[in-house]
Amino acid sequence: MLQLDFSKSADGLIPAIAQDWQTGDVLMLAYINEEAWHKTLETGVATYWTRSRKKLWIKGETSGNIQKVKEILVDCDLDTVIFKIEQVGDAACHEGYRSCFFRKVEADGSLSVVGKRVFDPEKVYKK
Amino acid sequence: MLQLDFSKSADGLIPAIAQDWQTGDVLMLAYINEEAWHKTLETGVATYWTRSRKKLWIKGETSGNIQKVKEILVDCDLDTVIFKIEQVGDAACHEGYRSCFFRKVEADGSLSVVGKRVFDPEKVYKK
Repeated sequence: MLQLDFSKSADGLIPAIAQDWQTGDVLMLAYINEEAWHKTLETGVATYWTRSRKKLWIKGETSGNIQKVKEILVDCDLDTVIFKIEQVGDAACHEGYRSCFFRKVEADGSLSVVGKRVFDPEKVYKK
Repeated sequence: MLQLDFSKSADGLIPAIAQDWQTGDVLMLAYINEEAWHKTLETGVATYWTRSRKKLWIKGETSGNIQKVKEILVDCDLDTVIFKIEQVGDAACHEGYRSCFFRKVEADGSLSVVGKRVFDPEKVYKK
């Protein structure tokens, strides 16, 4: 049975890259601990560990934009994973963009928006 | 001027995802500190911080398989970056595969190889 290596970072977490299973776009990166990892395997829904709130986090539990895991890849060192996912609701980013990586770095160090906004976060999170 | 947030992990590093700028395949994930970040911006060649050797690491300095950075994306929280790269030499993984993510997790928890081997690491690293 596969054992991931959670020992390499000081906080015992490893990064999980959420990648659109069809387009290959990277939608976000979050972290998992052992519990989040097993929960993801068991449920087929991407579950992370939030570093800010310090608890298990089923991505989309508030917005409804959960991630169905279609395939999981692991790297050579067993300390990073890729969740190939189907993004329900079309947006992974809490700012309403399809991808959290919606900005590119220009030559002068400034940022420009290249991503697509899918929803207005004010409407989704303000209940 | 863009300032990344290196404060969120206990070790002061942030993950950099190296993604093939043409196919969208994720080739590897490594870490950067402030110095590696500026070095990458200045040189246009992906430079990381190796956690095992604890020093700056120009990816490919030994194998010749450097990564030319074509575009950089940053996430909403400014604590993860994507280097869209051209992988020189066709392999990012020190095990000789195009991608470090050359194995998938099967339903029973075992791993199967799905990636393509490009070189024999014995020949490249043994000088």
